Amino acid sequence: MQYFCPIVQTLEGHKPSPYLPPGTSILKLNSNENPYPPSPNVMAALRTLEGDWLRRYPDPYAHTFCDVAASVLGVPANWLMVGNGCDDLLGLLFRACVNQERPIVYPIPTYGLYRTLAEQCSAPVIEISYPADHALPLDQLQQAQGALTLIASPNSPSGHQVPLFELRHLAESVPGILAIDEAYVDFGEGSALGLVHDYENVIILRTLSKGYSLAGLRFGFAIAQPQLLKGLFKLKDSYGVDAIAIHLAAAAMADQTYKNTCISHIKAERTQLTMALRQLGFQVNPSHGNFVLAQHTHAKTIHDTLRHQDIWVRHYHQPKLHTKLRITVGTPEQNQQLLKAMAEAIPPKN
Amino acid sequence: MQYFCPIVQTLEGHKPSPYLPPGTSILKLNSNENPYPPSPNVMAALRTLEGDWLRRYPDPYAHTFCDVAASVLGVPANWLMVGNGCDDLLGLLFRACVNQERPIVYPIPTYGLYRTLAEQCSAPVIEISYPADHALPLDQLQQAQGALTLIASPNSPSGHQVPLFELRHLAESVPGILAIDEAYVDFGEGSALGLVHDYENVIILRTLSKGYSLAGLRFGFAIAQPQLLKGLFKLKDSYGVDAIAIHLAAAAMADQTYKNTCISHIKAERTQLTMALRQLGFQVNPSHGNFVLAQHTHAKTIHDTLRHQDIWVRHYHQPKLHTKLRITVGTPEQNQQLLKAMAEAIPPKN
Repeated sequence: MQYFCPIVQTLEGHKPSPYLPPGTSILKLNSNENPYPPSPNVMAALRTLEGDWLRRYPDPYAHTFCDVAASVLGVPANWLMVGNGCDDLLGLLFRACVNQERPIVYPIPTYGLYRTLAEQCSAPVIEISYPADHALPLDQLQQAQGALTLIASPNSPSGHQVPLFELRHLAESVPGILAIDEAYVDFGEGSALGLVHDYENVIILRTLSKGYSLAGLRFGFAIAQPQLLKGLFKLKDSYGVDAIAIHLAAAAMADQTYKNTCISHIKAERTQLTMALRQLGFQVNPSHGNFVLAQHTHAKTIHDTLRHQDIWVRHYHQPKLHTKLRITVGTPEQNQQLLKAMAEAIPPKN
Repeated sequence: MQYFCPIVQTLEGHKPSPYLPPGTSILKLNSNENPYPPSPNVMAALRTLEGDWLRRYPDPYAHTFCDVAASVLGVPANWLMVGNGCDDLLGLLFRACVNQERPIVYPIPTYGLYRTLAEQCSAPVIEISYPADHALPLDQLQQAQGALTLIASPNSPSGHQVPLFELRHLAESVPGILAIDEAYVDFGEGSALGLVHDYENVIILRTLSKGYSLAGLRFGFAIAQPQLLKGLFKLKDSYGVDAIAIHLAAAAMADQTYKNTCISHIKAERTQLTMALRQLGFQVNPSHGNFVLAQHTHAKTIHDTLRHQDIWVRHYHQPKLHTKLRITVGTPEQNQQLLKAMAEAIPPKN
């Protein structure tokens, strides 16, 4: 007998990028981490945690977080569900919605984990390419008849945000669930959150990894009508989110002022970085994430040269992306360091 | 189209017991939480955590923890895999090993989550009853030909520990993977850890929830040969264990002296509690967990009376367990409070 199910034999598995411990001198602009520290509220909450919070099982429903988030977002607390990172919630959603007969549909290029999760569920994967202008391919998405249709907005690596009317149209025309992955929403304009009020098949996914500088905490949450969440709760690991994460996430969510200040800095710096990269000869579309996608004939060479200088940016192997680099927006100092190295890394024109 | 897969419609889902925030006056002896606080090492590690640990994605391989645990356990660091609680690793193991055609086999009564996870995977479930003396039903377990055979040792709620020679025999005779859930191992005698050296199909599961007083942290780990772990890594959420948990788990594991002291207190108190309950007319077998299983004709009545007095112990609805109460071993003071209330809660003999 093979030890594992046949599907496991065929999987490649997700290869995470190499880990750098805090304090590294490498300039790490490849994972879209926020360059600013978490809110002082979060650090204060960390310092005051007592042993009893660790000794006892955590609250399966994370009430302290949900109450704060409900107030910030203007939804009832029972429209919220927390997860061990947004990736955990995505995994849950895939397992609940798709299988060998129930397809998953999403536009590409997008977050690579979607394909990994689909393969784990043995689900038919229907990937529809975005046109050059990033208009949502509505007809094709609808015709694919997904049990789960998944749209990242703002999307990575393109950086574009899908207009609300397109998402509304999609919510009305897909037969199954429409999940909108708003991991980067804090860096965009507006949100699709309002759609959960109007459509029972819409679920919004959020994370504290990006806007709130808490990638290390692993905290994501979903917003949907209670009937939809009820199905997901059946598969959820009851104690999947730890007591510290719940406590710190509530503290982060309560400090919108700090988060908004960081976001303003990053947006301003994103504009600067976009202009500077264009001056260096890159083609850069406007971004609604905390990163820019910069196109250059010599992208791979530039990536490799920067890597040798301990500056990490993201390069993709896919044919459609191989002339592009995804670069996380850092602090002004980090961006200056990047641009200086970049200017030297561009091969001279013959 | 139904929003969820057919299997989800049929699931009941796991109902966690009600959550009590820290500081409650309720005496909570129903979840086998450790009554002592986590190691001072853990609290010190918590106080020194810096924002950069939270801002950045965690180490997918939890090297800092694995290095410490490898040294404590005497296995190579790459024989270890961490999870977001042992429940997370169980879920991963089920998804990797069982499906509609690949059965899961385990003796009962045992941890209720096994059935929940099996149902989520649509796997055939073969449950084999322990005889009264808790000898492992080796022939039946072997004949069931499980893709995954799962033994909790020490087992809950029975409290018995399976002898090593029986587990060795099972490892040799099952066709698939043998998982040994050692959540309560710190309260027992010895361990089955040595089997991973001899058998490529054996995986040992551990948790920091019980012996290390870290139920709120959600940290579990598995020990197996690298080839077996390689299959599980294909399905693992890369960033499933957060940076704080890794850091604190390493601190807890490094302080074996503190853990062993707590364990000694609990074992001594377990003996006291067992004797006192017997004097009150309960039948109590020796336990190798941080709990005792106490049998009494009026178990349900006693449970209900205690509950009204804000003392929570665990009562089961299953026919074979309905005359039994599972009671977590508390501090000496907690156990005295329990015993006093218990003496008054027993209905008088007619």
